[in-house]
Amino acid sequence: MTVYDLSNFGHRHLGPRQSGVEEMLEALGYDSLDALTTAAMPANIAQEEPLVLPDPLTETQAQARLRELASKNTLKRSMIGQGFYDTITPAVIRRNVTENPGWYTAYTPYQPEISQGRLEALLNFQTMVSDLTGMEIANASLLDESSAAAEAVLMMRRANRKHANDPVVIDKNIFPQTLAVVLGHTRPLGIETILVDLATEGLPEGDICGVIVQQPGDDGAIANHQKVFDEAKERGAMISVIADLLSLTMITPPGEQGADIAVGTTQRFGVPLFYGGPHAAYMATHERLVRQMPGRLVGVSEDANGMPAYRLALQTREQHIRREKATSNICTAQALLAVMAGMYGVYHGPEGVTEIANRTHMMATRLATALRDAGYELAAEHFFDTIVVTVKDVEGTMAKAVGAGYNLRRYSDNQVGISTDETTTEADIKAVAEVFGATLVETADSTIQAELVRESEFMTHEIFNTIRSETTMMRYCRRLADRDLALDRTMIPLGSCTMKLNAAAEMEAITWPELAGIHPYAPDDQATGWIEMIKDLESKLEAITGYAAVSLQPNAGSVGEYAGLLAIRHYLIDQGETDRDICIIPASAHGTNAASAVLAGLQVIVVKTADDGSIDSTHLDEVLEKYGDRIAAIMVTYPSTAGIYDTDVVEICEKVHNAGGQVYIDGANLNALVGLAQPGKFGGDVSHLNLHKTFSIPHGGGGPGVGPVCVAEHLVPYLPADPNHELSESATPVASTLYGSAGVLPISWAYITMMGADALKEATQVAVLSANYVAHRLKDHYPLLYTGLNDLVAHECILDLREITKNTGVTVEDVAKRLMDFGFHAPTMAFPVPGTLMVEPTESEDMEEMERFITAMITIREEITEIENGKIAVEESVLRHAPHPVSDVVSSDWDRAYSVEQAAFPVPELRVDKYFTPVSRIDQAGGDRNLVCSCPPPEAFELQ
Amino acid sequence: MTVYDLSNFGHRHLGPRQSGVEEMLEALGYDSLDALTTAAMPANIAQEEPLVLPDPLTETQAQARLRELASKNTLKRSMIGQGFYDTITPAVIRRNVTENPGWYTAYTPYQPEISQGRLEALLNFQTMVSDLTGMEIANASLLDESSAAAEAVLMMRRANRKHANDPVVIDKNIFPQTLAVVLGHTRPLGIETILVDLATEGLPEGDICGVIVQQPGDDGAIANHQKVFDEAKERGAMISVIADLLSLTMITPPGEQGADIAVGTTQRFGVPLFYGGPHAAYMATHERLVRQMPGRLVGVSEDANGMPAYRLALQTREQHIRREKATSNICTAQALLAVMAGMYGVYHGPEGVTEIANRTHMMATRLATALRDAGYELAAEHFFDTIVVTVKDVEGTMAKAVGAGYNLRRYSDNQVGISTDETTTEADIKAVAEVFGATLVETADSTIQAELVRESEFMTHEIFNTIRSETTMMRYCRRLADRDLALDRTMIPLGSCTMKLNAAAEMEAITWPELAGIHPYAPDDQATGWIEMIKDLESKLEAITGYAAVSLQPNAGSVGEYAGLLAIRHYLIDQGETDRDICIIPASAHGTNAASAVLAGLQVIVVKTADDGSIDSTHLDEVLEKYGDRIAAIMVTYPSTAGIYDTDVVEICEKVHNAGGQVYIDGANLNALVGLAQPGKFGGDVSHLNLHKTFSIPHGGGGPGVGPVCVAEHLVPYLPADPNHELSESATPVASTLYGSAGVLPISWAYITMMGADALKEATQVAVLSANYVAHRLKDHYPLLYTGLNDLVAHECILDLREITKNTGVTVEDVAKRLMDFGFHAPTMAFPVPGTLMVEPTESEDMEEMERFITAMITIREEITEIENGKIAVEESVLRHAPHPVSDVVSSDWDRAYSVEQAAFPVPELRVDKYFTPVSRIDQAGGDRNLVCSCPPPEAFELQ
Repeated sequence: MTVYDLSNFGHRHLGPRQSGVEEMLEALGYDSLDALTTAAMPANIAQEEPLVLPDPLTETQAQARLRELASKNTLKRSMIGQGFYDTITPAVIRRNVTENPGWYTAYTPYQPEISQGRLEALLNFQTMVSDLTGMEIANASLLDESSAAAEAVLMMRRANRKHANDPVVIDKNIFPQTLAVVLGHTRPLGIETILVDLATEGLPEGDICGVIVQQPGDDGAIANHQKVFDEAKERGAMISVIADLLSLTMITPPGEQGADIAVGTTQRFGVPLFYGGPHAAYMATHERLVRQMPGRLVGVSEDANGMPAYRLALQTREQHIRREKATSNICTAQALLAVMAGMYGVYHGPEGVTEIANRTHMMATRLATALRDAGYELAAEHFFDTIVVTVKDVEGTMAKAVGAGYNLRRYSDNQVGISTDETTTEADIKAVAEVFGATLVETADSTIQAELVRESEFMTHEIFNTIRSETTMMRYCRRLADRDLALDRTMIPLGSCTMKLNAAAEMEAITWPELAGIHPYAPDDQATGWIEMIKDLESKLEAITGYAAVSLQPNAGSVGEYAGLLAIRHYLIDQGETDRDICIIPASAHGTNAASAVLAGLQVIVVKTADDGSIDSTHLDEVLEKYGDRIAAIMVTYPSTAGIYDTDVVEICEKVHNAGGQVYIDGANLNALVGLAQPGKFGGDVSHLNLHKTFSIPHGGGGPGVGPVCVAEHLVPYLPADPNHELSESATPVASTLYGSAGVLPISWAYITMMGADALKEATQVAVLSANYVAHRLKDHYPLLYTGLNDLVAHECILDLREITKNTGVTVEDVAKRLMDFGFHAPTMAFPVPGTLMVEPTESEDMEEMERFITAMITIREEITEIENGKIAVEESVLRHAPHPVSDVVSSDWDRAYSVEQAAFPVPELRVDKYFTPVSRIDQAGGDRNLVCSCPPPEAFELQ
Repeated sequence: MTVYDLSNFGHRHLGPRQSGVEEMLEALGYDSLDALTTAAMPANIAQEEPLVLPDPLTETQAQARLRELASKNTLKRSMIGQGFYDTITPAVIRRNVTENPGWYTAYTPYQPEISQGRLEALLNFQTMVSDLTGMEIANASLLDESSAAAEAVLMMRRANRKHANDPVVIDKNIFPQTLAVVLGHTRPLGIETILVDLATEGLPEGDICGVIVQQPGDDGAIANHQKVFDEAKERGAMISVIADLLSLTMITPPGEQGADIAVGTTQRFGVPLFYGGPHAAYMATHERLVRQMPGRLVGVSEDANGMPAYRLALQTREQHIRREKATSNICTAQALLAVMAGMYGVYHGPEGVTEIANRTHMMATRLATALRDAGYELAAEHFFDTIVVTVKDVEGTMAKAVGAGYNLRRYSDNQVGISTDETTTEADIKAVAEVFGATLVETADSTIQAELVRESEFMTHEIFNTIRSETTMMRYCRRLADRDLALDRTMIPLGSCTMKLNAAAEMEAITWPELAGIHPYAPDDQATGWIEMIKDLESKLEAITGYAAVSLQPNAGSVGEYAGLLAIRHYLIDQGETDRDICIIPASAHGTNAASAVLAGLQVIVVKTADDGSIDSTHLDEVLEKYGDRIAAIMVTYPSTAGIYDTDVVEICEKVHNAGGQVYIDGANLNALVGLAQPGKFGGDVSHLNLHKTFSIPHGGGGPGVGPVCVAEHLVPYLPADPNHELSESATPVASTLYGSAGVLPISWAYITMMGADALKEATQVAVLSANYVAHRLKDHYPLLYTGLNDLVAHECILDLREITKNTGVTVEDVAKRLMDFGFHAPTMAFPVPGTLMVEPTESEDMEEMERFITAMITIREEITEIENGKIAVEESVLRHAPHPVSDVVSSDWDRAYSVEQAAFPVPELRVDKYFTPVSRIDQAGGDRNLVCSCPPPEAFELQ
């Protein structure tokens, strides 16, 4: 496409208008996009045949097709349970959070001054979780319940050093998908597990590291594990409980029973079933264990004015993944879903969630009584929302229920499971009773054993007790969103994060009930539309990447890496290559690479970076020479994390292949390849993609993400299995459901479908064009760290501030914070090289916005020059004091060395549309020294 | 309901929590809501039986029911045309404008400093319309095409004084609904009209006032009216053209042919069919006629700092309706829809809308050629998008088309009409050709006559030529919304406007395709769900008001008034009471009352207001005595516009009835009656309601509104007829379609359905409670102008500032503008009494927000006291300089008599969440002296 056609979605997705593309090409001295990317990218990776996809659909056509697919699904009332329960998303939250770009286009809150709104929302979530679980501290958040359980097991191993090599006891009464994912995680690490029925068998003999139980159990039973817990503690073991959050309003929480860790899903707090995800899982623990806890943690610190301010706490612990010392690879979590669940708690409050729990429980007890009265045998005497019933004809009963409009769970060959939830009505339990030939009773007593009835208070903080009207809730959602900067207000030029457009036409479908309302374990014939869309998306990703097969199960990029490395490992084992246990990782790689390798049971060997940012070829040769038969794989990010199309990637792949290793090409930067080159063709055996980078799923303030794993033919058998149906040692499931975060897949499906092959390629080219244009405009002000062929970069560029810092004391942090005064989110700081800023404009930013950014950067450079010239000391400079909240600059007592105008309006346009950070620069370290991770009392915020 | 039940929507709609209700009752000295309203309202109007409605549905249940109703509609491809064309709402506009509370909950921009965003959006609309029509000036906006045509006729009568009493010539080739509405307007006023076929007959003999034609015509024909226009002008007549806005990208616009007025709908600029409305109509004219133009007009003025700023221009002309001198009663228009259409223009630009028009035209020409080739006779040689085809069997052809999935228009007994639009595809015209047994041709020439091909440029302003990417569009929508204050950020305590919650669950359905996609003239059997919902809503409104029947046709409150008065007039004529031509209107009435009466052909007699704000009973007796048999009606607002439950309303109704007149009870304040009293029972013969006040339709920044007219049994035959099917003299249609703004009716339906009878009554009571609480808290600071029984007010209270103004010079305007610095929208200014502020908190505001408002008002009173005490001069005060944009208070040169902190942070909470007006106080008069009503050049906004 050379002429812009605005009825084509592709040209709405692209930021620069045709004139902008031409202007940028001219500035760079190329006469076409093809000429530019041919010059930038090595010829030997260029794909031989152009990408072929069906003709692009318009927005209207794509939505019509989505409606058609959605209508192929059959929406039954779900009583399957098994970790997924229907729930009511309050419309005010759906409209003002889930469907609001102010929330969903935000990035992870690494820059806390422009993230106070979502940090508060996540702190609410943490407070709610720690209150409900009876624990001291909770994170925000984990990927799903199954992987959270696996993380709990790994955490017990880390924390219980004395028993680190002793087995972990797993109670049999846990969901099958959880067991599958836990064992999938423990086996590659050689962790011994013992599966027992704790209720009947008690703890096994011998030393044990930890115990993990689920409450209520897989069969719905509420068991009093107190004795087992006491004994375990006495024997030096730790205790993890997988707990249903809603039930904890009624049942003694894990914290009060002595558990060390509680995990679970928060889905039923207002987050749709989404055919399996995305949903936020939680983990709560004791303060003494907090440094062992995976996942992000919001904490309270202070800003430069001494006011309370939120930020991610203990980031050095996990978020900035610690390479080969890593213990968890959690990175993108489920922030948007945690925000939804937290808002649900805010809107309902303790009395509301208790009422919902009571109603859910009463529906179950009334149904149970009716079934018992009709002579049925139930698996458990004490239960919350789930009853398991013995029937003569399981298939017949289930079919009869479907006929009446209800999905039950096939629990065993002679048992069905029935779960009630927030949406269950009198009519529902009456209809289900009739399926069993039973007659509903009017009332029934609670079946929760008296000694386990919860008596402690929870959600007592003001925030859970003041917002009850929709008007107040709407304004709270808006007020928090307004404190933050997201893509709906500004470019977010974060290198390696690809903050591109998340188009409304892509987003709209995800909340349609025919898609969002399907239970992940509903029969396939009720999910025909879902499956058709997913298969179509898979085949399109195969066409784009050149791989043989794709699994969409990984619900984050890090999980995709993990799944890909597991596939390699299992393949090598099946090939008899059991000694191959080393994964080579370049020094410049993203920290998750190494973390995932460690989790997959591999040892990490780091190869050095050459001066030009590429892999040090000599060092690689040495490593290959030295470790020879032990080489399992190399992980290469391409284009490299330096944002360069390295010229020797084909050669590197060949070298590793020749050494008998597999090649993992990290697809984090696929945005610079789509339509131009295929990792599956130029040397990769496996890649993961980030649908939330390259394929337009929004970042949601730190998730949802989707990290599909793509493999060559020989690795297909090792893709993740369905955790609900298979327990395989060579095809390990990595999430609770076959399709992971299925709920957001329509976004990527719509993106690819509406772009088509030509626009996808053009998007790649414009991304490269824009990055090179920004580099070109800024290189005289800030030196470029790396360039590649013909002095070009790929889709991002690294500005080297180290010399500036040396000469002036101005740090990358100063520049990042000062950009906030201009209304910008900072570029990526200090990755992959400390002292640098990595800028990725993406293809979605128009010329005007890029110019605004360039002007900001040049203006800041002039401010730096003043320090350089000795006109002002760095400590007194506008840079060091940035960002400037409104309460700083509206002041009669201003006594700083620069003017209020310079602080607030460094460029005149800001006088009209000005964003102020709600706080000044936040003290990161101070907050970590004095850790507070739940909502502070209102008095803390008192203003004078 | 005494105990709050939060699973009940009613208690989410209400703002105060139970504790708040109790606290307010205690402060007022009542022990229950019933006790309070019994004390406030006269006993003789209290409804005898409690309101009975079906049990309330939850949000989930109501939406399920809406989905069920929607699914009963059948969505065919519409090729009916006749003023309504399918169109594509860009998803980015749907999500970021139509579905964004920042846009839809805003009030009419009477306070321009907090409305710069939507004023800019409306100015874009005006600029687009004046460019496309080739006129100098355009308004924003009118209610629909038919009533806009009627307004054009009335405007010609006003402007052409010399020929004011001569007939108006109407070309026969206009849509039947337009003719019906125009004649409905002209007849009551005794305006003579002559219907001729201008194309064949030319102008009639004799003096004429004006000519009105439609281009393209009813039959789709593009006629060159130049000769007729020239002759008409020569004979001193004015010319109005009803023009299809999209066609004007290709056809010589009315302005270039010498027309004085152009009107039409802007629906096809991205606004869904909505089963008939709401859609914004436009009117464009010459600068010299601007003071005759009805409807709102955005103009450019300057703020106190000399920066360009937008505001409503010439408000004294129409917006503040001029009582008995009124010439138009347009008040609420279709602002939100005008914003959508303007945004559509911004996003597509001139090349985009031209491309859409070309495509639409080509689809029609290809189809026409195919039909001609197959031997069909077409009505017109020159056409844009509509062809009228002679067929043997009209019903058979239409049925066959329906079978193929297409609705055609039944044009006459032997002709069908086919219209193409933006959504028409190749497959569509192929399928329709097949219905006629014709074969589609590949290409066809344009059929627009060469001399009428447009050559002039349009939409040349930068705003229509820079925003093409979705990212930029999304940010533009957000940036404009952020400049404004709407309900999503603050209470809008506007007396008489009832700015209550517009709940998300009420709003979501309106954009569902199965509702929004239905053409208003689709066969009834395709609109089963719509009709069922509308009938249900009608019956619920009947139950609430106590009337016999309701028509939902009026698409604004003013139109409801007009329809109600016409019903009275026609009834009296049928009773032989032709001399009854006087409508009594209290001095305190809203201006539209008198304006509507004048339009209905009635003479207005004003009765005085007594000292207590009620109707002066003595004066009423005199009027009744004096005019006796000429009394047609009295219009009474109840509770009165003074916000008081007058005690003598029953007596007044009886008096007027005894005099042979009818009683019109204006339902603007029905918010204070629902569940307590029924106007149809305590004396009213007719009322209009404002669904956008009492029944939760959002104000949309000045529309959409819905003004149902409710009548007693004897007036039922006089309710508005279907303009597409009936042309009746006694049941005059007032809008283009039977159900007017049907598209937004699901909002009120959902509101009533989810509230149920108990919560509706409780909402009324809480509205009264909150108003009395605010009055109670503020009365020591600002005297209350009126109170009623037991010193109570109804649902609003009037603060009397006249003494303050006299003593200090501080005006209501100063207070209103100062409230903006606190982040509030001002209460109603100077209505019904100059020098006062009327405060209506509504039932949806919680205690905290009311306290925030009370604190602001008290703080302002303290600032007034400083002036009173001589500490500061009013001219130098923070009040007179309010509001303070950020560029004022971030200043090194501050030299005012008060501090920047006092200006920006009069209360400390503002330091965290601060809204700044983008401009300082706007010069209203200056802008009117130097009228600019289209987008100023970018340089005008240049900042230093």
